[in-house]
Amino acid sequence: MTLRMKDAHPRPLDLKKVSIEDPYWSPYLNLIRNTVIPYQWEALNDRVPDADPSRAIRNFRIAAGLETGKFEGFVFQDSDLYKWLEAVGYALAVSPDPDLERIADEAIELIAAAQQADGYLNTYFTVAEPERRWTNLTDCHELYCAGHLIEAAVAYFYGTGKRNLLDVACRLADHVDALFGPGPGQIRGYDGHQEIELALVKLAEATGADKYMRLASFFIDERGQQPSFFRQEWESRGRTSYWQPGVVQKEPPSLAYHQADKPVREQSVATGHAVRAVYMYAAMADLAARNNDEGLLAACRRLWNNVVHKQMYVNGSIGSTHHGEAFTFDYDLPNDTNYSETCASIGLILFAQRMLRLEARGEYGDVLERALYNTVTAGMASDGKHFFYVNPMEVWPEASAGNPGKHHVKAVRQKWYGCACCPPNVARLLSSLGSYAYSASEDALYAHLHIGGEAKLDIAGRQVTLRTSSELPWSGRVALTLAEASGAGAFTLAVRVPSWSPQSAFSLNGTPLSPDIRDGYAYVERDWQEGDVFEIALDMQPRRIYAAADARANAGRVALQRGPLVYCIEETDNGAPIASLAIRAGSELRPLQGDGRLAGTVLLEADGLRQTDPADAGGALYRTSPPESAPQRIVAVPYTLWGNREPGEMQVWIRELP
Amino acid sequence: MTLRMKDAHPRPLDLKKVSIEDPYWSPYLNLIRNTVIPYQWEALNDRVPDADPSRAIRNFRIAAGLETGKFEGFVFQDSDLYKWLEAVGYALAVSPDPDLERIADEAIELIAAAQQADGYLNTYFTVAEPERRWTNLTDCHELYCAGHLIEAAVAYFYGTGKRNLLDVACRLADHVDALFGPGPGQIRGYDGHQEIELALVKLAEATGADKYMRLASFFIDERGQQPSFFRQEWESRGRTSYWQPGVVQKEPPSLAYHQADKPVREQSVATGHAVRAVYMYAAMADLAARNNDEGLLAACRRLWNNVVHKQMYVNGSIGSTHHGEAFTFDYDLPNDTNYSETCASIGLILFAQRMLRLEARGEYGDVLERALYNTVTAGMASDGKHFFYVNPMEVWPEASAGNPGKHHVKAVRQKWYGCACCPPNVARLLSSLGSYAYSASEDALYAHLHIGGEAKLDIAGRQVTLRTSSELPWSGRVALTLAEASGAGAFTLAVRVPSWSPQSAFSLNGTPLSPDIRDGYAYVERDWQEGDVFEIALDMQPRRIYAAADARANAGRVALQRGPLVYCIEETDNGAPIASLAIRAGSELRPLQGDGRLAGTVLLEADGLRQTDPADAGGALYRTSPPESAPQRIVAVPYTLWGNREPGEMQVWIRELP
Repeated sequence: MTLRMKDAHPRPLDLKKVSIEDPYWSPYLNLIRNTVIPYQWEALNDRVPDADPSRAIRNFRIAAGLETGKFEGFVFQDSDLYKWLEAVGYALAVSPDPDLERIADEAIELIAAAQQADGYLNTYFTVAEPERRWTNLTDCHELYCAGHLIEAAVAYFYGTGKRNLLDVACRLADHVDALFGPGPGQIRGYDGHQEIELALVKLAEATGADKYMRLASFFIDERGQQPSFFRQEWESRGRTSYWQPGVVQKEPPSLAYHQADKPVREQSVATGHAVRAVYMYAAMADLAARNNDEGLLAACRRLWNNVVHKQMYVNGSIGSTHHGEAFTFDYDLPNDTNYSETCASIGLILFAQRMLRLEARGEYGDVLERALYNTVTAGMASDGKHFFYVNPMEVWPEASAGNPGKHHVKAVRQKWYGCACCPPNVARLLSSLGSYAYSASEDALYAHLHIGGEAKLDIAGRQVTLRTSSELPWSGRVALTLAEASGAGAFTLAVRVPSWSPQSAFSLNGTPLSPDIRDGYAYVERDWQEGDVFEIALDMQPRRIYAAADARANAGRVALQRGPLVYCIEETDNGAPIASLAIRAGSELRPLQGDGRLAGTVLLEADGLRQTDPADAGGALYRTSPPESAPQRIVAVPYTLWGNREPGEMQVWIRELP
Repeated sequence: MTLRMKDAHPRPLDLKKVSIEDPYWSPYLNLIRNTVIPYQWEALNDRVPDADPSRAIRNFRIAAGLETGKFEGFVFQDSDLYKWLEAVGYALAVSPDPDLERIADEAIELIAAAQQADGYLNTYFTVAEPERRWTNLTDCHELYCAGHLIEAAVAYFYGTGKRNLLDVACRLADHVDALFGPGPGQIRGYDGHQEIELALVKLAEATGADKYMRLASFFIDERGQQPSFFRQEWESRGRTSYWQPGVVQKEPPSLAYHQADKPVREQSVATGHAVRAVYMYAAMADLAARNNDEGLLAACRRLWNNVVHKQMYVNGSIGSTHHGEAFTFDYDLPNDTNYSETCASIGLILFAQRMLRLEARGEYGDVLERALYNTVTAGMASDGKHFFYVNPMEVWPEASAGNPGKHHVKAVRQKWYGCACCPPNVARLLSSLGSYAYSASEDALYAHLHIGGEAKLDIAGRQVTLRTSSELPWSGRVALTLAEASGAGAFTLAVRVPSWSPQSAFSLNGTPLSPDIRDGYAYVERDWQEGDVFEIALDMQPRRIYAAADARANAGRVALQRGPLVYCIEETDNGAPIASLAIRAGSELRPLQGDGRLAGTVLLEADGLRQTDPADAGGALYRTSPPESAPQRIVAVPYTLWGNREPGEMQVWIRELP
């Protein structure tokens, strides 16, 4: 099954080699660059009015001795600044900006000033509990923050060529490397929140230092071994938790919540905190690729299948419960209480990207695309200043306000959270979008996402520029043009054919073509010439999606999709209660041009009906006369754009009636 | 609208005057008498193996100085013993039992020994915090426990004629009466958990002492006045809560949760903890009747309408969320996360019974019957030793185990809870069932529930015995026979005609009759003669119930009812997933004889269908091919009997398809 040919491990193209010019994505990228990054800098500096203060910069200033005061914010607050710097690194890779770079350099100087002489760097422990370093890995995110620092440092090094943050990161990583490991006197432990594992892989690649790769492998392979590190640590600190100061706990920390209940190679079912899980799976896939580790690859495939085929929402989101922001169990996909954190979909994208390196299977690209087009962008309002953490499948604003089990479901995007993980995570993902679009081996160029722009690469001894033009997600025409190509020699263009496009048409220089399609990729091997145009017409027929019968919440319901976009119905177009609407089975789904704030988008309309209380019901809560039905045109909008108009009810899974 | 004729305030018949001999109810009453009461005595004494210990008796022994040790259990643990004694009082009223009475007398002796010299009685404060009496009414249930003591004392006095517990109760009530009130130096406060209000009304009736009625009125009218007693008390004790020792709270206690956000006369919407609310409404109705208080009656009617027409489940249960065991908001009736505590339905029955005293409206009887037949009995397993707190509308056992938002939903009745409010509450309600069946004014006898047995009363100057035979809930024949009747003179027999029986037939001594039917009661005024038989044939046609469109959770769904019983579908009869089943709109609902553990009951069967994944789905979570449908006979069982066979999925609201 595995494609372990010589092109089996293609690498993402360097971000600097990919420029995006795309009618759909460029506005998002410009929003990130022009609004989100500056806005988040203001937020990190506590200058956003009426929003929860971040305190992140202030904590660094206190740790650096530039200010006095107490640490404030979450124990992992440092990571917000690191994620912002990572986004800045990508933004500068794509287009230089001296002003932004100067601000970033100042922030990096501050970070360096907060680093301790031994390389240690964490403002919480430095300011609040210097004597308690490394005593509560379970709760305190020390290695998690280190990981985000490392990712930022690598991104900034790529983006600017400067080693200022990379040197800080290496000093910290060396400190960690000395402390953790299987050797005598070393801590045989790992973090409560996985993140440093995938970061160390990046650091190893950026520096060429294998020790970081070995450290990543140590963290991955140590996790879940017995006796449990988390349990031993819990006993050592007197059975306490950071989150409940002064309380002696009856129960030790949940190992399954931290994906540490068994060695990772033996795991088959995604459990616990969703972001922790997918960050870890991404690192496992990284290491499986680097080390040709079949055992780890098998675990990755099992976990992928469990997440994607048993625990993923149709919008590419994961985490069925807000209790612990966690997975629950197979097929438990409630629509009105799901968590579906934006960060978890970002983590799923990271995992998918790594799996694509291991195996060119369309499913990885499909899921990456599903999460990207539907959840990641849904997490951000069109103003770039309001964000969703939770991406609900169903919203009744009164219930969000009036039912405590639904308080986490917000009908309106929020300004800035005390725990602001998602906004900078969206920023760093979208700033580096180019690196998800393509990958290449020595003789094959893979186009995973069909986003307009240019990609430059050396392949088969040739210098090549591929220009993509794409009308996605609104229409299905995609053209890949060899804009420049030096010399001669065959290489393969491997273009993902999304699973939502069962009827795709291909042409080469205007002549229809039936390429070899394997596992969701169309392969064309050829001595490509400058000016060659490979075109795909994707099938944009709106589609009904049904869920497996085991996913009980969706029984009798249908979701709508067109191209990569999942749709939903909103009160503003359809009237309340949304639950009273049903769509006619088999009725035509008609594309419709959006207007107002949805101008330029494609909506869907369909014949449906509204069920209403009969006239004789007289306001009764319960009655014996059946509801009356009247035809109603149902209008659905792209899920990713929901909640950008008047607040109201929303539903992804719509009742279907014959 | 109000029936304020001379018979406007009929009184329930004395429990001793009603004997129940009924094929449906007698087994329940025998179960209470022979199993539940003895079992609970064992539980109160910590002698039930593998069940959470109650500690209730032990706490009294410690408070009485008979044992040393620490208080254990909930702060309101005393009330479990009181509720048990109340049930015993009713049981002894119905049939003497020297052995049981001896055990109860010993328990009462123990309670009396734990009473303090000043009349104070509460084992928590006496044992654990004697200096903190009356400093935290909000959280600590001191008056709540006093209320249950009073109810027990009145019941035991009725049942045995003994004043032993009544004297204890009066001493405590006098102590409370001296402490609380509008006078100088008195506490202008009230309890966080209403209960003493309705208990004081009973004490006033039992003793003839008006001061108790005035104290009840004080508690009711003081509640919700500004400045808020609960907020002042919270400030006085340093902004702390009993439930979070040592934590200085940011937020004061929720006034709406305690129904203290506005004066009770101004309340229109049921909020907060459901049991607290309905206990209070019952007391309000009591006082409205005693004091001919139109303002209070108007508030009762508003609150009744809100509860019953906007916040009640179809099984007569209330409390849409387990967060605080509380009401949420109008039409928020989720089926998979509801709380629907057994105790709350008992409280709703208390409220309905009081409203029936005020106004002979069938709706009060309908709701009383709905809660009694569907939720109260569902709360108890057929062995009398396992109980539900939560009465779910939908169960997926895997979700109860694997989704933290559904941990409160149990698929199997539990042995004995640490917080064991419901089991003794079921016992005391069913032990006194006779007092809910009839009421009488000077010249009218009301039959509210059609339960077989005899009722003796003096009416219109005559001594009368009414014998009821009833085949409910399995068939609809009810006969009321004047078994004995001294002298002569007209009086009215007012017989409730349930709203579920739109086609009822009446006869008098075999001759069809069309009685005057007003507001759900059939009125027959007559010089009743010994041997007269008034018969009703109730309409047992199975019925479909639909919910208002505003109750979004039930859109496209139907519930089934036959007679007073609501039905549900269980996995054991229909296979999993239950959610894949749909019933055909308009299909016949056929009664079916139950077998096995459901022998003697009537089930329902209907034509339906099962939707399954199509063959080409290949195990996919999402797919484009619609589900396949195959006809399936759907079998529904009485909701009250669910969960008495193999554990599995259950659903009340069934999808309906044309």
